[in-house]
Amino acid sequence: MIGKKTEPKVYEMNWRDAVLYALGVGAQIEELPFLYENAQGGFKVLPTFAVVPSFKPFGELILEMKLDFTRILHGEQLIQLYRPIPSKGRLSTVAQVKDIYDKGKGALLVFRFETSSEGGEPVCASEISLFYRGAGGFGGAPGPAAEPLNPPQGVEPDFRVLYKIPENQAALYRLNGDINPLHIDPNFARLAGFERPILHGLCTYGYAGRAILHSVCQGDVSRFKEFKARFANVVFPGETLITEGWKDEGGRYLIQVRTDRAVVINQAYAKVEE
Amino acid sequence: MIGKKTEPKVYEMNWRDAVLYALGVGAQIEELPFLYENAQGGFKVLPTFAVVPSFKPFGELILEMKLDFTRILHGEQLIQLYRPIPSKGRLSTVAQVKDIYDKGKGALLVFRFETSSEGGEPVCASEISLFYRGAGGFGGAPGPAAEPLNPPQGVEPDFRVLYKIPENQAALYRLNGDINPLHIDPNFARLAGFERPILHGLCTYGYAGRAILHSVCQGDVSRFKEFKARFANVVFPGETLITEGWKDEGGRYLIQVRTDRAVVINQAYAKVEE
Repeated sequence: MIGKKTEPKVYEMNWRDAVLYALGVGAQIEELPFLYENAQGGFKVLPTFAVVPSFKPFGELILEMKLDFTRILHGEQLIQLYRPIPSKGRLSTVAQVKDIYDKGKGALLVFRFETSSEGGEPVCASEISLFYRGAGGFGGAPGPAAEPLNPPQGVEPDFRVLYKIPENQAALYRLNGDINPLHIDPNFARLAGFERPILHGLCTYGYAGRAILHSVCQGDVSRFKEFKARFANVVFPGETLITEGWKDEGGRYLIQVRTDRAVVINQAYAKVEE
Repeated sequence: MIGKKTEPKVYEMNWRDAVLYALGVGAQIEELPFLYENAQGGFKVLPTFAVVPSFKPFGELILEMKLDFTRILHGEQLIQLYRPIPSKGRLSTVAQVKDIYDKGKGALLVFRFETSSEGGEPVCASEISLFYRGAGGFGGAPGPAAEPLNPPQGVEPDFRVLYKIPENQAALYRLNGDINPLHIDPNFARLAGFERPILHGLCTYGYAGRAILHSVCQGDVSRFKEFKARFANVVFPGETLITEGWKDEGGRYLIQVRTDRAVVINQAYAKVEE
């Protein structure tokens, strides 16, 4: 399956989708260009919206591969921005299984999505790494060791942003398309081993993206180039996310997100245009 | 124009619309049946959703009548529920200009909307009264004197519910269809004479409807029969709404909504099944 590309899937973009997404990852009224289609200076789309056009092709690949949803853990997420995401028009996304690694207890599946504009210009790409429990030991390669991305010990971050997540945030975020009941159904969440529904990993990711955008890009989406994150722990709606970044080199920041309970995103970096 | 009915306009209902509306009027996670399509005990649609299928036919009537948007004030709103609003299916709405009264400084336009299910069963009705500034003095009837609906003086209400409105609430509410810039554009709001964008009157109305539903109907939408309100003052996002109700007779409650600045809904009642 590795390397096989799907046919392009079309995502019909409009400002309502972008606003719903922005509100879904907590955008506040001070971030008006992301909430108002006729904002002074122009309407903008959050860079982490790059994940949205991949939802449908991703879902279809998962179905085609006959993966068991209950054994999937979202491990890592990467987005790459080639240009600001347009607020309208047809976006085309090609998906592929990029790699499958044998991690012993499970398999690591890496999916890549390339999204382009109507005119065929590359807009953004994303990669989703899934840990597929119980599917390891098939004699495959373990994959390359990941570059460690730990923030420097004992060094104050260059930025720190706190966002309180409202209790009903997952109910809003899921309107973007990921309606997995784990994020809203108390019984389903208990069966999955959680005391209550957990926030979507990509919702946390969107909050972190906002923190990066406003802290180091001054809200200029054209400067936001790349964001990679590992989901280290669950987040519950109602918690406060603390996103911190340490300036590395070449426009790279090492990123960590935590609640007062745990580190929830680690092994993470953002690349910005300086 | 009075009495003329439009062709039925179809509104294709699905649970996403109902959830977006519920979140738009502040529904919290404790109100799970209004936020989760597979909620235990069944998904429910907020009674005040009755206003939504009338947005489109209302907009078309306004255009057809060539009314000047900047001279319109939303005066009163009424909804009547014949049965719980279904969470999917095609709803048909017939609109009519019910009355036009001459109020001297302006005209009072009353629009009525009747919404029925696919099978032709009446589901709900709504009435919108608009004050059209500068259009009075045409020699028309002033209309009947309204029944006064003042809460009894010095009597504690039978219920009181406080809801804090998030600062970004109007940005969310407008995704239901009313994208009037008055509710999001600071410059437009200033030109209209407000220090900043104001909340949609029907968003306040939806908050009040939730307060009534949970206080006197125990969340049972089949018991919520009617809700009429006059918009007495503007509400700004960030304010706290205090909805109070006084038991009248025959299942009627007199309703008042205020912020710490002003009474914002008065001359209001709700009818519930006791």
